[in-house]
Amino acid sequence: MSDPRAIGVFDSGVGGLTVVRSILDDLPREPVLYFGDTARYPYGPRTLEEVRTFAVQIARHLVERDVKMIVVACNSATAAAIEQVRAAVSVPVVGVIEPAVRAAVRATRNGRVGLIGTEVTVASGAYHDALARLDPGSEIALIGQACPAFVEFVERGDTTSPALLAAAERYLTPLQAAGVDTLILGCTHYPLLRGALHHVMGPEVLLLSSADETAKDVYEILGERGLLNEMTRPPDHRFECSGDPEWFAGLGRRFLGPEFLDADRVSLELSKSR
Amino acid sequence: MSDPRAIGVFDSGVGGLTVVRSILDDLPREPVLYFGDTARYPYGPRTLEEVRTFAVQIARHLVERDVKMIVVACNSATAAAIEQVRAAVSVPVVGVIEPAVRAAVRATRNGRVGLIGTEVTVASGAYHDALARLDPGSEIALIGQACPAFVEFVERGDTTSPALLAAAERYLTPLQAAGVDTLILGCTHYPLLRGALHHVMGPEVLLLSSADETAKDVYEILGERGLLNEMTRPPDHRFECSGDPEWFAGLGRRFLGPEFLDADRVSLELSKSR
Repeated sequence: MSDPRAIGVFDSGVGGLTVVRSILDDLPREPVLYFGDTARYPYGPRTLEEVRTFAVQIARHLVERDVKMIVVACNSATAAAIEQVRAAVSVPVVGVIEPAVRAAVRATRNGRVGLIGTEVTVASGAYHDALARLDPGSEIALIGQACPAFVEFVERGDTTSPALLAAAERYLTPLQAAGVDTLILGCTHYPLLRGALHHVMGPEVLLLSSADETAKDVYEILGERGLLNEMTRPPDHRFECSGDPEWFAGLGRRFLGPEFLDADRVSLELSKSR
Repeated sequence: MSDPRAIGVFDSGVGGLTVVRSILDDLPREPVLYFGDTARYPYGPRTLEEVRTFAVQIARHLVERDVKMIVVACNSATAAAIEQVRAAVSVPVVGVIEPAVRAAVRATRNGRVGLIGTEVTVASGAYHDALARLDPGSEIALIGQACPAFVEFVERGDTTSPALLAAAERYLTPLQAAGVDTLILGCTHYPLLRGALHHVMGPEVLLLSSADETAKDVYEILGERGLLNEMTRPPDHRFECSGDPEWFAGLGRRFLGPEFLDADRVSLELSKSR
């Protein structure tokens, strides 16, 4: 049994490409169709209702393109809309929150787990909800910290400057004071800050990338359901965005790597956009 | 202070490119000069004395090329020759074994750690030696398992077939029976098997990639010693090999990604080669 259909992955922008990269490391024969909703990026300031509408719209677009599963590679969209997406399509749907929380529950030794993400993700409570669902009666303390400046540093390629390290120290000091031994990187941009986060948190703290953890779930689901592609020729990936393909491609090569070729602009129904 | 010199990285073949990839994720502004000793690959069947000679020869070649540090991105060479390389050059030298062992000491909850690698790496005892050095009087049980067939699967791009999963189950069953909660991927090819290893070991076992852990050490050392490159234009990487550059480039793009361009053939003193 071999299923040559693509894995559909979407995000509000380029961050979800770190998830694609982890998926392609684990599953080099799987084709990916990525959609970055760059015309409506970022989702942070949007209302819950808007993000749900966008996420369902994109998921339906991917299913029309005949994907075999959908990865919601965006913390905001996972927090707001994972259940709505699951209800809207008949293919398996994976988000980025539950895999990272599950890994943290397994990994922490002292029951104190830090979470860093955008303001909206941390304020949404989605990680706490996932913890309550996955570890009922959990004794784990999950301590969130918004790191609003990080995305801009990553998009500039700055992972080492004194300004970046000062921002990291400012954000992370409360988590160190709280004694966390495990840190969830709750934003798809943050795997690219791993060196800096490790430097500031110190070697005793385990960093969990939601990109890597989500990729493991994708591997499991495709394997269990007989949806793997067994063809040995290199797969063709496709990259679509709703905004400027040049901007998208420039950052895309940095986030994903060699598999990123050109991006196509695709117009969804954009009446709800700004 | 900004140091534009390259980080020198070497391996017997292409596997060390997974280490380069982790380094470039953390440090996108650093240029890398990679040397794959493909004419003498693999180092496994070589004598200890031969591997020491090769490693020192390559390290001196990299220093002549003016690198600012050296990463021995090869388990065999790290096991055999890390101290010889340190004695031969005046730049900082990092291997792949100590970073992974340090991470395992921090991560294990039950004190039972698995190690997978090639026959030679596992038989060398280098990981046990590193554990004794880094965690004196350690109560951690480190259980090694050679996985000789894995490299060939990875080089074919096969990470999901029934044959690969059967091999993984055969190799990993003793480690599961031993109750390990942490598994060191002690070969630079194995990060590309992460999905399969996770599938077979189950979600309770933490996988530690020596590539990721080594990259964190590189970040620390360059930062501490003021050796980071602060230039913001994209760095130029160079890839050299002692054997066929076509073979090297074909696998190199798969292992590293976009930063892999063409490879140059460089002849070291090859009188000791087969």
